[in-house]
Amino acid sequence: MVRNKQVLLKNYVDGFPKESDLEVSSDATISLELPKNESGVVLLKNLYLSCDPMMRNRMTETYLGAYMESFKPGSPLVGVGVSEVVESSHPDFQKGDYVTGYINWEEFSVVRNPQLTKIQHTDVPLSYYTGILGMAGMTAYVGFYEICSAKKGDYFFVSAAAGAVGQLVGQFAKRAGCYVVGSAGSKEKVDLLKNKFGFDDAFNYKEEQDLTATLKRYFPDGIDVYFDNVGGKMLDAVLANMRVQGRIAACGMVSQYNSLQEPEGIYNMSLVIFKSIKILGFTFYHYLHLYPKFYDLILPLLREKKIEYIEDIAEGLEKGPAALLGLFSGKNIGKQLVAVAHD
Amino acid sequence: MVRNKQVLLKNYVDGFPKESDLEVSSDATISLELPKNESGVVLLKNLYLSCDPMMRNRMTETYLGAYMESFKPGSPLVGVGVSEVVESSHPDFQKGDYVTGYINWEEFSVVRNPQLTKIQHTDVPLSYYTGILGMAGMTAYVGFYEICSAKKGDYFFVSAAAGAVGQLVGQFAKRAGCYVVGSAGSKEKVDLLKNKFGFDDAFNYKEEQDLTATLKRYFPDGIDVYFDNVGGKMLDAVLANMRVQGRIAACGMVSQYNSLQEPEGIYNMSLVIFKSIKILGFTFYHYLHLYPKFYDLILPLLREKKIEYIEDIAEGLEKGPAALLGLFSGKNIGKQLVAVAHD
Repeated sequence: MVRNKQVLLKNYVDGFPKESDLEVSSDATISLELPKNESGVVLLKNLYLSCDPMMRNRMTETYLGAYMESFKPGSPLVGVGVSEVVESSHPDFQKGDYVTGYINWEEFSVVRNPQLTKIQHTDVPLSYYTGILGMAGMTAYVGFYEICSAKKGDYFFVSAAAGAVGQLVGQFAKRAGCYVVGSAGSKEKVDLLKNKFGFDDAFNYKEEQDLTATLKRYFPDGIDVYFDNVGGKMLDAVLANMRVQGRIAACGMVSQYNSLQEPEGIYNMSLVIFKSIKILGFTFYHYLHLYPKFYDLILPLLREKKIEYIEDIAEGLEKGPAALLGLFSGKNIGKQLVAVAHD
Repeated sequence: MVRNKQVLLKNYVDGFPKESDLEVSSDATISLELPKNESGVVLLKNLYLSCDPMMRNRMTETYLGAYMESFKPGSPLVGVGVSEVVESSHPDFQKGDYVTGYINWEEFSVVRNPQLTKIQHTDVPLSYYTGILGMAGMTAYVGFYEICSAKKGDYFFVSAAAGAVGQLVGQFAKRAGCYVVGSAGSKEKVDLLKNKFGFDDAFNYKEEQDLTATLKRYFPDGIDVYFDNVGGKMLDAVLANMRVQGRIAACGMVSQYNSLQEPEGIYNMSLVIFKSIKILGFTFYHYLHLYPKFYDLILPLLREKKIEYIEDIAEGLEKGPAALLGLFSGKNIGKQLVAVAHD
C-alpha cells in the first residue's frame, strides 16, 4: 500500500472557479498489487494529464453537455491522460505498455474494464498524446478538414490561437493556402503566432476596445472562415465581419464556461440569415474513426518538424489546480498539461 | 399617358413600421406606348405582388443583408411579383406573356434590360408564383431538401408554421416521415396546421409563458431539426431542447426584423458546442439552378392536390401597406400577397 496523491473536486463551482474549489489530497492509499482472482484489471502509473477548458463544465452540478457527467465532489477530476501500465490482468494490456484515455487525476489508478487505447507510436514525446496526438489534435483536424470547408485563398480567423487547438488549426489553414489571423491574450502569444506558428497576422484582444472594428482592420474584405474557441463578444464581432456563405467552426466558448448560468447574449444572429452563414458545432467524438487518417497526416509532420507545437507543462499534481484554472485567465502558452511523473 | 398608382417608401423606418411610413400615391403617370427607337424594353401590367418579411430590412437606411439594397424614400417598394407583358421590344418577351421577378409596387412598369422569368406553366393560378412557385416555395424546398438533412423519424419543429414557407416545410417534413410540430400565433392557425396541413401537433406561442417548457412538452425526447422562421426567444428555447447533432435551418428571424438596431440576445449558444448543433443560414439565391428540380416535385403535387396551399390576398394596391405590415403582427393566414389586378 502506498500513498496515492489525488486532485479532488471539493464542491460544485458557480462562476469563476478558484483553487479552493479543488483539493490536492494525500489521504488515499492504493495497493500496487492487482487483486487476486480477478481478470481484466490494469494498474496504471499516471504520467501526463491534459488540462481542457471543457472540464469546467463538469464542475457544475447541472452538466450542460451531452457526452459526459458532472464530476463528483470528493472524487478526483477525470481527464485525458497518458499512463504506464505497471500491472495487468487484462489480455489487451501488458506491463510496460503506454496507454491513453480518460484518467483520474491521481498518481496511480486501478481500472476495471479499461476504455484505454494502447499507444503505438512511442518515438514522439508521450506527453503529446494529451494534446497534438490526442483530443486537441483531433479537434483541430476534424474542425479544419471535416467541418469548416476552408479552401485556398480564404480569409481565416482563429481565436485562442496560441492554445492547444488554435496553434494547430492556424498551421493547417496556412498549409491549405488561407490568409490566417489569430487572436490571443498577450503580446508574447501574439509574437509566437506571427514568428513561430507562421500566422499572417495576430492581435492581442485584451488591447482592443471594439472587436468589430479590430476585425474590420485585419479583414477589410471580411472573413470566410472563423474557428471559434471563445464565443461571446468575439463571436458577435465576427458575425458582423463575415462574408456571404462564411463558415464558423464552433469548437469552444471558453469565454462563457464560467458563466453558464448567466451567459452573454449573441446579438448578431440575424446576420446568419442575411449573409447565409453556417455555425457548425462539432466534437471530435463523432469522428473517432478518423484517428488513423489523422495520424497519417500528423506523425510525419511532427517527425519532419514541419509543424510547431508548444506545451506548457506544470510539474507535479500539486500544480494541477493552478494549471487547470489558468486556462480561464489565459495563463498558459500552448497546450497546458500536468506531468504527474515522467516516462 | 395614364395614372400609375404606386406604393412608395415615405421615409426610412426605425423600429416597428407604420402605415404612415408608406404612401399610396396616384401622382405618377406612365405612357402605355413603348419608347420609339429603343429595343429591349417591356411594359408590364402588374398583377400580383408578394409580401415578404425580408422587405422590412430594405426599409432601413443601413441595409444589413448581402444581396440587395435599401429602398429609396419617394420611390416604390420592390418585391417579387407576377406581371403581364402588354408591350415588348425585347426579343425574349411577347405581348401576352406572363412573367415573374422583382417588380415595382405600381400598376404599370416600364422595364429596361428586364431580369424577368417567363412563366411556363399557366395551368396553375398565376398568383402562386408569388409564393409556392416562387421565393417561398424555393426557400422551403432548399431549406428542407438541401439544408437540414431531415430523415424519417426525425423530430421536426417549424415556427411561423402557417406562413408561406412554414406550411410547405411542414408538409415536406410529413412526406419525408418526420414527426412534425408547428408554432403559430392564433388558434385559427393552429387548427389549420393540425387539420388542413396534416401536422402531428401545433401550438399558439402567444399563449405560452415559457417556450423552453412548451417545447419540452411537445418534444419530450428533443428536437432533431428546427426550421427557424422567427429567431429570438424561440431560437433560444429550441437550442435548450435540441438533440445531439441537431440541425437548425435558419431561414428567417421575423421576430427581429423590427429591432435590427437593438436585437434580442441569444443566450444558449454554448449548447451549439455542447450538443454539436449546426445552425445553417441559407437563402434560395444560391440554389437557383434547382428551380427545374423543384418544379418537377411541386407541380405534380399541386395538380394532384397532394399539397395544401393557402393564400391571403389583399385586393388592390391601396391595401398593400396594411398587408405588408400585417406580416409583423401575424395578421396573415398563409401566403400574403397583393392583387393589383387579376389575370
